[in-house]
Amino acid sequence: MDFKHLIDQLESCDYRELYQNDFFLTWDKTQDEIMAIFAVADALRALRENNRSARIFDSGLAISLFRDNSTRTRFSFASACNLLGLEVQDLDEGKSQISHGETVKETANMISFMADVIGIRDDMYIGKGHTYMKNVADYVKEGYETGVLEQRPTLVNLQCDIDHPTQIMADTLHVIHELGGVENLRGKKVAMTWAYSPSYGKPLSVPQGVIGLMTRFGMDVVLAHPEGYEIMDTMEEVAKHNEEQYGGRFTRVTSMEEAFKDADIVYPKSWAPFRAMEIRTDLYAKGDKAGIDALEKELLAQNARYKNWTCSEEMMKLTRDGRALYLHCLPADITGVSCAEGEVDGSVFDRYRVPLYKQASFKPYIIAAMIFLQKVKHPAAKLDELWKGAAPRWADNA
Amino acid sequence: MDFKHLIDQLESCDYRELYQNDFFLTWDKTQDEIMAIFAVADALRALRENNRSARIFDSGLAISLFRDNSTRTRFSFASACNLLGLEVQDLDEGKSQISHGETVKETANMISFMADVIGIRDDMYIGKGHTYMKNVADYVKEGYETGVLEQRPTLVNLQCDIDHPTQIMADTLHVIHELGGVENLRGKKVAMTWAYSPSYGKPLSVPQGVIGLMTRFGMDVVLAHPEGYEIMDTMEEVAKHNEEQYGGRFTRVTSMEEAFKDADIVYPKSWAPFRAMEIRTDLYAKGDKAGIDALEKELLAQNARYKNWTCSEEMMKLTRDGRALYLHCLPADITGVSCAEGEVDGSVFDRYRVPLYKQASFKPYIIAAMIFLQKVKHPAAKLDELWKGAAPRWADNA
Amino acid sequence: MDFKHLIDQLESCDYRELYQNDFFLTWDKTQDEIMAIFAVADALRALRENNRSARIFDSGLAISLFRDNSTRTRFSFASACNLLGLEVQDLDEGKSQISHGETVKETANMISFMADVIGIRDDMYIGKGHTYMKNVADYVKEGYETGVLEQRPTLVNLQCDIDHPTQIMADTLHVIHELGGVENLRGKKVAMTWAYSPSYGKPLSVPQGVIGLMTRFGMDVVLAHPEGYEIMDTMEEVAKHNEEQYGGRFTRVTSMEEAFKDADIVYPKSWAPFRAMEIRTDLYAKGDKAGIDALEKELLAQNARYKNWTCSEEMMKLTRDGRALYLHCLPADITGVSCAEGEVDGSVFDRYRVPLYKQASFKPYIIAAMIFLQKVKHPAAKLDELWKGAAPRWADNA
Repeated sequence: MDFKHLIDQLESCDYRELYQNDFFLTWDKTQDEIMAIFAVADALRALRENNRSARIFDSGLAISLFRDNSTRTRFSFASACNLLGLEVQDLDEGKSQISHGETVKETANMISFMADVIGIRDDMYIGKGHTYMKNVADYVKEGYETGVLEQRPTLVNLQCDIDHPTQIMADTLHVIHELGGVENLRGKKVAMTWAYSPSYGKPLSVPQGVIGLMTRFGMDVVLAHPEGYEIMDTMEEVAKHNEEQYGGRFTRVTSMEEAFKDADIVYPKSWAPFRAMEIRTDLYAKGDKAGIDALEKELLAQNARYKNWTCSEEMMKLTRDGRALYLHCLPADITGVSCAEGEVDGSVFDRYRVPLYKQASFKPYIIAAMIFLQKVKHPAAKLDELWKGAAPRWADNA
Repeated sequence: MDFKHLIDQLESCDYRELYQNDFFLTWDKTQDEIMAIFAVADALRALRENNRSARIFDSGLAISLFRDNSTRTRFSFASACNLLGLEVQDLDEGKSQISHGETVKETANMISFMADVIGIRDDMYIGKGHTYMKNVADYVKEGYETGVLEQRPTLVNLQCDIDHPTQIMADTLHVIHELGGVENLRGKKVAMTWAYSPSYGKPLSVPQGVIGLMTRFGMDVVLAHPEGYEIMDTMEEVAKHNEEQYGGRFTRVTSMEEAFKDADIVYPKSWAPFRAMEIRTDLYAKGDKAGIDALEKELLAQNARYKNWTCSEEMMKLTRDGRALYLHCLPADITGVSCAEGEVDGSVFDRYRVPLYKQASFKPYIIAAMIFLQKVKHPAAKLDELWKGAAPRWADNA
Repeated sequence: MDFKHLIDQLESCDYRELYQNDFFLTWDKTQDEIMAIFAVADALRALRENNRSARIFDSGLAISLFRDNSTRTRFSFASACNLLGLEVQDLDEGKSQISHGETVKETANMISFMADVIGIRDDMYIGKGHTYMKNVADYVKEGYETGVLEQRPTLVNLQCDIDHPTQIMADTLHVIHELGGVENLRGKKVAMTWAYSPSYGKPLSVPQGVIGLMTRFGMDVVLAHPEGYEIMDTMEEVAKHNEEQYGGRFTRVTSMEEAFKDADIVYPKSWAPFRAMEIRTDLYAKGDKAGIDALEKELLAQNARYKNWTCSEEMMKLTRDGRALYLHCLPADITGVSCAEGEVDGSVFDRYRVPLYKQASFKPYIIAAMIFLQKVKHPAAKLDELWKGAAPRWADNA
């Protein structure tokens, strides 16, 4: 990929509002902003592949706050920050004093004295994650304005209850590379479908994020799930806006087969019913352990009725030429590998292993690009300088 | 703030004994040494606010050893180290092999092969924390002298059973800024008072540290607590020395009201009775769980008799013009916010939120200044170089 | 030590196969490769002692994966990585999603998107640790070749079920320094003996590693252990090859006394019987808790029959002039200190404390040297540049 071309792509976008700003949801951002992030992600990858340093911080801290276990996102965030010269400090709530009565406002300020970036993953409770992130962002902005903080740490949403922007942007950049350019996305059919998993309670942020982002590139996103697995109503509006603005399409069908039919891309994945997640959130708030157990039992029983919603070889045959691009945010529940019956057949998963790992490999660059554009006022000039300055990242020879 | 002025302030102090030395207690240090640390803390903050790098280490490690949960101190230490170019490695005793019979001498050497700094927080057991730090410092000094270690890692006390120097120096630097200069501290009345908390067992290091440091600037420190909440006897001597040397004053009164009367500064805070803490230390040593539970019950019952020791709006009205500067090391037990009845009224706390957060914001700079003066032989020249060299910390434009 | 001399030593070795390669076992490597690592370890130490930066990475990640608690190895790895400019990210399997069905192949790729180095310690289960490392190395190599990873992260074995190369190479470099040169190792007698410990289940990797490495320098390695504490059969072959190739000698005796007789070096240390460890591995695989408990009881009873296998003052008197060099990988079970009866008398341990800590101090440099030679194509030129360029690691004066 030509580096000059990436800088031109970036310069053709109006990215000014990303500077010193937070990233919550893709649908908060303009098309130009999304395209600028893609251009910077590709440029940062090119710098690294050519052993050129992309370091823009001499010192600095990135705070990560994960309210759920994580490997991929944790390592992606750490990689992105390291690439730019930031050191990650995890706020491990177990090790902290947050439990003894500290408010979010206080925590937000206390962890931010020298923080340049805050990355948060909070996807467990409906109506909570996004709100929490907004609050943290407001509090640190206030901290900056009142002189408590010397800089305004910007926030990156590493997954909330509504959207999973770093994942879906990585997915989309992967699709752009696989299809040979963003212009080739137009008119392609994406089957975003529910799939059976022996667990319950997986977040809605992936299907919602796909609907919210992929419809923007003129793609034809088809959602399918068993009755009872509805996503948030508000996504309807987001999709409608994208249809009008960008010529994409969002439709719903009632079977996996219908969604997969002639699909160019399939994204079969388990998620929990939105309304059940709302109930669970309330039960957790009340500390109703018995209620949670009962709900879990009920949801698992409900799941078990839809074991045929699985990305089998037969299902794949329905797709365009039987060769749709299979996407998954990983880890997948693989039939015969990680469980007896799951989201995808072992043979299907295996055939797509390399593209799946490539898909995941974009996430660190998406995160780094978001931070780069939040922090660098003249990003095109800076990228040009990094490319030409040619400070090696790694001194592999004298 | 004029950077030249800060360098002059530093140069007017004899700071040579800080170089290659440890920081245990503020009362071990001369007035010049304390003032040098304040000057460097302000200088490091000015560097950062002006986006100039304060990095003095190209690589290097700082070891942190927290024997109690911590958010603020952990992040302050991490921030300070990152600012100077050191990477923090936590010694998490749970993950280590210390439990299987390793001596302190061995641990001290094993974690220090490439350590430049060791930060320790060990405040739980009377008679233990300070001693532990002294031992670690002695062992690494010996390790250096016998050729085991290539450098002598210096130690920073991040809170012990006796003093909390990084906290109280941050508090004092905050007061200096609020009052417009260290000369304005003379004669000001500081009410260091006990306050009710629904918990028990908070360390004595804050009240003791305040008595030990603030009396040095000619301040009039008044201690008040209910009967039974005595602090360590040895503080009497420290205070007396400060009175003679620096013209401060240390008095005791028996009610919060009397302490607050016309106070310029109030620091109402819960702590556990010294003698009870001694008993608890013995019980823990014996592993006497029942004894600990009984002691806790007894102390909570004792606490409950003093719920009127709280920083209410009424209490604040007693202070000078009803507008004393309210200090707290955070997190505070806030009535109606983090507990039903606590150390401070919600409305009082809220009115002082911004200054409280500013107070806390000095801690990373105090820690960094301590390390800077431990590690840099010609600190004034180095600061000047950093200021003029103008390497940006953060390349926000090309 | 003359830096030029170290570079000459390095240049006299053929180290090309270390570049972009993994380090699993010392007996995979040629004598030249081992000697090159020693030369670089000494050179890196000289750089640090002379306050010259050894940083070869502007940014970069090292992943550590410890499947057992660790202080020493964790800090050694962190120190080594920091020295070269790499930031360590721990893969804490507890915090990760590995439990929910992720394969090793997937984990290996997911943590490696920007990883330069992976350090693994996996010594608990016979037949597992080495295999696991091989798998990870194969998977990341495949990830690099298929374009998932931009670089090939190289692997450093931080202890497996078979060998403990960073430990034994540090031990050997310590011996070289103590004896005044590698040429002085020839013909020296090394007593590698079992010693009683009140615990059971310590890895075999140390005795095996000593046999595998020290016989290469013409040393006379004598193994002694009670009946039933056999090591892996395959070590016979490794030792035989070393005897033929390097003129060393490997013999077995049946008593500690015989091994210690006229020994120049003694390494008395507890380990678990190989066959018992195999059984334990199976029991763990089956989750047979009762079986594990029964085995543990049986092994502890077996251990207790050999309490006289201890490095007492009397035993030390048998060694050459009563002054053999005592080695231990630490932590040791010290009689009267960390346990009632253990591997070594308190007085013996104390007399050797400084050399023991020095022994341990080589480990970070051995790890760093392995990484340096994996990553730098022209290491002699690079070391020369680092020495002459004289960028200070630590700006201790202006």
